[in-house]
Parts: sequence; structure tokens; C-alpha cells
Amino acid sequence: MPCRRVGKYTICIDERPSIIGYAAVVGKKEGEGPLCRDFDTINEDTTFGEKTWEKSESRLLKDAISRAIDKSKIAASQIDLIFAGDLLNQCISTTYGLRDIGIPLYGLYGACSTMAESISLAAVACGCGFANSCVAATSSHFCSAERQFRLPLEYGGQRPPTAQWTVTGAGAVVIAPTGEGPYITHITPGKIIDLGIKDANNMGAAMAPAAADTLSVFFTDTNTAPSDYDLIMSGDLGYSGAELTRELVQRNGFDLGPNYMDAGMLIFDQKGQDVHAGGSGCGCSASVLCSYVLNRMRASIFKKVVFVGTGALMSPTSIQQGETIPSIAHLVVLES
Amino acid sequence: MPCRRVGKYTICIDERPSIIGYAAVVGKKEGEGPLCRDFDTINEDTTFGEKTWEKSESRLLKDAISRAIDKSKIAASQIDLIFAGDLLNQCISTTYGLRDIGIPLYGLYGACSTMAESISLAAVACGCGFANSCVAATSSHFCSAERQFRLPLEYGGQRPPTAQWTVTGAGAVVIAPTGEGPYITHITPGKIIDLGIKDANNMGAAMAPAAADTLSVFFTDTNTAPSDYDLIMSGDLGYSGAELTRELVQRNGFDLGPNYMDAGMLIFDQKGQDVHAGGSGCGCSASVLCSYVLNRMRASIFKKVVFVGTGALMSPTSIQQGETIPSIAHLVVLES
Repeated sequence: MPCRRVGKYTICIDERPSIIGYAAVVGKKEGEGPLCRDFDTINEDTTFGEKTWEKSESRLLKDAISRAIDKSKIAASQIDLIFAGDLLNQCISTTYGLRDIGIPLYGLYGACSTMAESISLAAVACGCGFANSCVAATSSHFCSAERQFRLPLEYGGQRPPTAQWTVTGAGAVVIAPTGEGPYITHITPGKIIDLGIKDANNMGAAMAPAAADTLSVFFTDTNTAPSDYDLIMSGDLGYSGAELTRELVQRNGFDLGPNYMDAGMLIFDQKGQDVHAGGSGCGCSASVLCSYVLNRMRASIFKKVVFVGTGALMSPTSIQQGETIPSIAHLVVLES
Repeated sequence: MPCRRVGKYTICIDERPSIIGYAAVVGKKEGEGPLCRDFDTINEDTTFGEKTWEKSESRLLKDAISRAIDKSKIAASQIDLIFAGDLLNQCISTTYGLRDIGIPLYGLYGACSTMAESISLAAVACGCGFANSCVAATSSHFCSAERQFRLPLEYGGQRPPTAQWTVTGAGAVVIAPTGEGPYITHITPGKIIDLGIKDANNMGAAMAPAAADTLSVFFTDTNTAPSDYDLIMSGDLGYSGAELTRELVQRNGFDLGPNYMDAGMLIFDQKGQDVHAGGSGCGCSASVLCSYVLNRMRASIFKKVVFVGTGALMSPTSIQQGETIPSIAHLVVLES
């Protein structure tokens, strides 16, 4: 069998499918941050030439996928399958963005864990003979997310210190059964964890227990330690969520050490860009993975990377009904 | 490799994973329809004892999954993975329904194609060594869907003849690498198709081209004819969508014949229950598959079944922005 269970939850993909192309497309504010040199495209016009924010986000996702396919040097007509999703109601940035692409699609909903979920399923598909090439992708847009999840932009509401800034960005990878790497070697699917956080302006705290659970499960299952990896990147917990995750993982006996970082901390200059607790949104970890991380893996600066995508699984309706925020974290291991 | 490509898009799963448990839980109106004897549970109280319709739907999904696991005779703690999703914004009936279950979850968004999508991915996972047991499940609720997609119930708006009635129901299957069947032998993932339908009260017409495309691709890929199958069931196109699908598939050279039926036509008595164009919603095809279809496969009345799940991928926001309705259809073959 191409997949093999290691411990209770982790899967080793012995076939080691490879990332053969990747791209990150972002907006103006992201392009002004510390990762500006890593992105494929920075768009000064965050409308992307479209009339609504939802259509802008669709365009953004489509651009990232097209660029990743171009860079993989295989024709779009040879892509067998796409795994993608986003934060919008009924995942419309994905469905409208990919309306004309003519490639089979399995739509996903994992909130900000979508990039890890899509890579996991695409890697399994390429590892087991299901597909010869898959795309895994996701996106978010500050303006479509604000008006859907929080308040209309025109309202100008104040943000508490724990609030994160939704990234306008998309990331896409093309995965194939063989290639020059980075390779996807392990995946750990996450369970829903809900420790009772109700504050939709403190998603980091809501998601930290899920991130800590999946990371602890992974280290236990594989009998490895955080120090065995050059980078452990969560996304998107921001500053306060990453600190909590470090604490919770420590309680389980693992010290995440200096190689632990969150995508929401990497993408913006916290003080200079006034983003409070850092970046968030599906497009945050996706665009950081598909630029900063994969560029450094290709350059052999990082050789073994743990990427854990974290999603807050509430909706404005559930928050209005007084519900707490359930969260989930999916993990993938990349090796060059 | 456990999966093998047949033709351009279809996958043959040589390992033939088996359905080892299944359950369908529905509401009062569904229980008054022609399939009343096939369902596991009919709830007279469609609130399911909860204070909001969204919470009712969560309860419904959780009940169907619990019953399917009970019937599979394996412990819930032995289930490796759940693939599930629903129609609500951010899939909250799934995420809140499965909050306490403690089993890893990959969340999906495929609108009414979710049951076919979740079975496809669960079958691949069980076929390739990823999981020893998976759940595939979905749900819909008339009251949560009406207020989210259309109008508040209290408004009492009139429905045109092409409108379908969202089923209050959930279906769940447990899949394992081996078992007594029915077995999942082939899957065909669908492409998004959009022929320009804008009327959200005529989803059957919007989805028919996607259903016809996936069915035609499947018959071509496998070099089989509709008459090779005891039942070809789409869901959920309703009466007008099913008629259109039959016409479109005929244009591609395949006569769907007398064994073609839509789940939305089976679940209600069209005239007696005043449902206009038939049933719809993720829970329609899921509950019909997990009752009527699988019961008859276990009894060897149906030996080879094609199930094609069809999803309309719009949102109220995209409709308000004047957009057309993109659709998708995923297909699975079940053999006893």
C-alpha cells in the first residue's frame, strides 16, 4: 500500500509525491511586508480589475493556480484534479474562480487549514495512482472577509489587540508522483477541538488548542522531536495564538524551540504595518508556504519542514447564536 | 497502485473498499413520503430538540453518523477519518455536529454533490492504506436552507413550479478496506460546468449540464452503457433537472433508459406532498442512497449502481451580484 499508518493518526506516504510547481500572488499591503521579494506577483490594485471583492478574490485564486501550473512546466490540460476551497460562504471564490478551468475539482472547507488539507489530499491522490498531477490551492481577501465575517469596511470599527489582519493572497502548488521535490512524506489529519473561546476577535486563542493537539500527536506518532525539523510553521495563529500553542505543546512534553514560527507573524511587519496580532485567512499560510518556505526548501536552507494549517470553524451565524469556536489543524511534512 | 485511471477522468479502485454500515435520518415530511419504510429514523419534531435550525441540522448529521457507526459494528474510536460537509455558510452543521466526536475530519464543500464527493475520497483513503475505516456523510435541513438561501420562512413566499424542496435529512456510510459490500469500484470526479442559468429557483436546469457531462465522461471512459447498471441515480436534480439530464446525455449518444432516476423524485410524492419539482439539498441524495438504494443492494435487487451527486455552487451573494450558477457532479459506482 502506498500509504502506511505511523502511530495512531499519522500517515507516511512512501511514494513521496513531489511539489513540481508553486506560486503565491498577493495584494499591496502584503507586498509592502518583509516577504516582498518572495512572492510571484504583488498587485497594487487589490480589486484585481473586478467590480466586487468576491470576484477579486476569485481572480486572485485563479492567477495563483495559473502561475503554479506554468511554473510546473506541464500543460493545464494534463492536470487531473484540483483540491481547493476558501473562507467565503459556499466557497464562491473557488467555484467562480475555477468555473472555466475545465479540470475536475474536489471542493474543501477547512477555513484557514485549507492549504494543509488540500496538500494532504493531493499528495495522497498522487501517491496512490489516483492522479498524475494535482493542484492544491486556497485564497483569502481582506475586503471580502471583513464584510462577511465582521463589519462593512465603511463602518471603520476598531480592532482589539488580539485581532488578526486577513491576508489578501492566494497560494497554489502542483503535485506529481515524482519530481525534484520538495516531497510530501507525512500527513496528520486533525480532530475538531473546542475549548470554549467565544471571541471572534481572538481566533488565535480559539485555534491554538487544535494546533497543539495535532503537533503533539504528530511528534508522538513519528517519535520525532521539534528539533528534528528546520522549520515548524503554523498558519494562521498570529502572535498570540502562536505563543499559546508553544505553551500547550510544552505541556505535552515537546519544546517547539527556535524553529517554530507562524505564517501570520512572518507576512507582516507587526508594528510598521499596524496589523495587531498578525496575519490570518486561508491565503496567509498558503502564500507564505508558496513563497518564503518553498523558495528556501528549493535552496536547501530548509530541508525538513512541518506545516500545520489551523482553521477556526465558526460562522457569523454560530457566533450570533452564542456558540464557541471549534477549530481544527491539519499537518503535512515537506522534505527536500 | 491501488487506483488506476480508466479513460481520461475515471478511476478504478482495484481494492474495492466496502460499505460496512450506513444510516439515513430524516424529518417528518420525508417520513410521510414513499420511502418511509427505508429510513432508520423519522423525527416528528424537526427541531430535534434544539433552539435554532442550524443546531437542529448539526444534531441530524451527528445522529446519522452515530447510527451508521453502530450498524457497522466497529467502535467509534476505531474510525480513522471522516469526510463531511453541508450547505450552510462555513459548513457549520458539520463542524458543530462533529465538535465532540474526537475523530479526524476533512471538511468538504460540494453543495448537493457532497455525498458523492465524500464517498469518493473515503473510498480512495480506504483503498490506498490511508485509513482502515472512514465515514462519509452530509446533511441538509429545510428550515436552515430556506432562511440562508431564499427567504425567511415567516415571509411565506410563493414557489415557482421549477423550485425544489430542501430535504430535512442526513445520510452517512462507514467504509472499510474489506467487507461484505456494496463495494465502491469506480469514481469520476466532475468539472465545473456553467451554461448561464441565473434562476436560483431552477437549480435542476443549472445542474443538469454538469450531471450530463460527468455521466457521459463515465460511460465513455469505462466503455459501458447505461443498460449495464440496475440503477443510475442522480441527486438532486428533481423532475425538471432529471428530464434535461436525460436529453443532454442522449445528445452525447447514451440513452439513460428506464433505470435512470433522481433522488429528488424518489423521496417525495410530488403531487400529494406539494413539492413542485421534487426534493433537493445535500441530505436528499444522501438519505435516499443510505436507505432505498443501499437496502436494495444488500437485498441484491440492485447489483450495479451509478450514483452521481450534483451540486449548484452559487451563494446568495453571487446571485445578488448577477452571476450565473456554476455546477458540478461527482460520480461513484457501487457493486454488490
